[in-house]
Amino acid sequence: MVKIKPSLYTCLSPALLHLYDLKNAVVVIIDVFRATSTIAAVIKNGAKCIIPVDTVAKAIDISKKIDAIAAGERDGQIAEGLQHGNSPLEYSKQFIEGKTLVLTTTNGTKLLQMALDNNADTIISGSFPNLSSVCKFLIEQNKNVVLGCAGWKDRYNIEDTLFAGAVISKVKEHFTVHCDSSLTAELLYESNKSDLAGFAPNLTHYHRLVERFGLIEDINFCLTPDVADVLVLYKDGKLINGK
Amino acid sequence: MVKIKPSLYTCLSPALLHLYDLKNAVVVIIDVFRATSTIAAVIKNGAKCIIPVDTVAKAIDISKKIDAIAAGERDGQIAEGLQHGNSPLEYSKQFIEGKTLVLTTTNGTKLLQMALDNNADTIISGSFPNLSSVCKFLIEQNKNVVLGCAGWKDRYNIEDTLFAGAVISKVKEHFTVHCDSSLTAELLYESNKSDLAGFAPNLTHYHRLVERFGLIEDINFCLTPDVADVLVLYKDGKLINGK
Repeated sequence: MVKIKPSLYTCLSPALLHLYDLKNAVVVIIDVFRATSTIAAVIKNGAKCIIPVDTVAKAIDISKKIDAIAAGERDGQIAEGLQHGNSPLEYSKQFIEGKTLVLTTTNGTKLLQMALDNNADTIISGSFPNLSSVCKFLIEQNKNVVLGCAGWKDRYNIEDTLFAGAVISKVKEHFTVHCDSSLTAELLYESNKSDLAGFAPNLTHYHRLVERFGLIEDINFCLTPDVADVLVLYKDGKLINGK
Repeated sequence: MVKIKPSLYTCLSPALLHLYDLKNAVVVIIDVFRATSTIAAVIKNGAKCIIPVDTVAKAIDISKKIDAIAAGERDGQIAEGLQHGNSPLEYSKQFIEGKTLVLTTTNGTKLLQMALDNNADTIISGSFPNLSSVCKFLIEQNKNVVLGCAGWKDRYNIEDTLFAGAVISKVKEHFTVHCDSSLTAELLYESNKSDLAGFAPNLTHYHRLVERFGLIEDINFCLTPDVADVLVLYKDGKLINGK
């Protein structure tokens, strides 16, 4: 008997998410610079959980009620009214272990909410720092996959697509991959995987983060595979360690 | 005095068109397989003009009123009720010279209407068959440019992106090009320009057109630069030879 493989699609922008059927799919939220990289770091360093929210006001409100840390960014900087931002390097084990983080970001948390609204079967958070855990989970689940790139305010970006390409290159034998977005992602990744850090200065978001805010160490962390290799699963309103 | 160059952006899907300011821009409608390639062939072969419309009923209605040829496709085939389709090879000089074509297609004519609705300054039709005329016009105009990929039912496709990349590689010194979509388009084109026909079997739309409908000659025409090298300008509801 020929085994029918589940399908894998890449969605290049939140504005295209409605084109994909999420109901029976694992959706990977991808926001490489920096939300999902930070999320991997926070969970890897032992946070109890992360509560993703869509506004700064909600982040502050919830954090007060449950004695959590409110964090987030708007346009690449710590959001006004918050003490903690969206840098993976802010969240050491010493600081975050055992704590709860309430997080709001420009693109990643918005896409997560959209995946929920579109009845995604399962949602995980993906980034280079937890690449291997993501791939292992997708293969084990044996369900359809949608790799959801968060982009920048609905615009396509390369870094999220590169990560989609990294996943595809590692899992493709287990899936039917037949969409031009996935092929582009894989080609981009294969052409640049030997020097992601050297390719990064070509990206618009690199200029936003490095030239305006000097965040080169963040960029390097966000492009390094498996430096925070943990499965991050969304469950009951929280991002948790999926083991 | 430093000359400020106009900007060039690439829009990867009609569903992202609202993110771009078209008011002061030349918008290039790109539907490589096959609308804009066919449009180039029709105009090059001496048609008086092409009237793009959004429905088959309109195509039939208008063609009767003005004694024109109604043509179009839906899902890759000649649309029901029409005698002529969306193949560039249907429109020889002998057949089309001096005539008017009323054309409706799945993606290209829809994007053109969207560009109109978004108040584009100038609209032209672009494809490999008229690549050089497109590039020459963009350089001469010295205005902002949006390369609009028609995609497939709002999904990203590679062939339109490849053409955007071809344009970028030829005009980039005259523009400020700083968007990840344009960089991706250029990288895709540069990696595959030496053998576009050999790369084509990787594309989803290739399978739709070749495996289902046997249209390999269409594909080859649509990927050959300058085989119908004419500037196609949209003016007063018509696509005309812009000289």
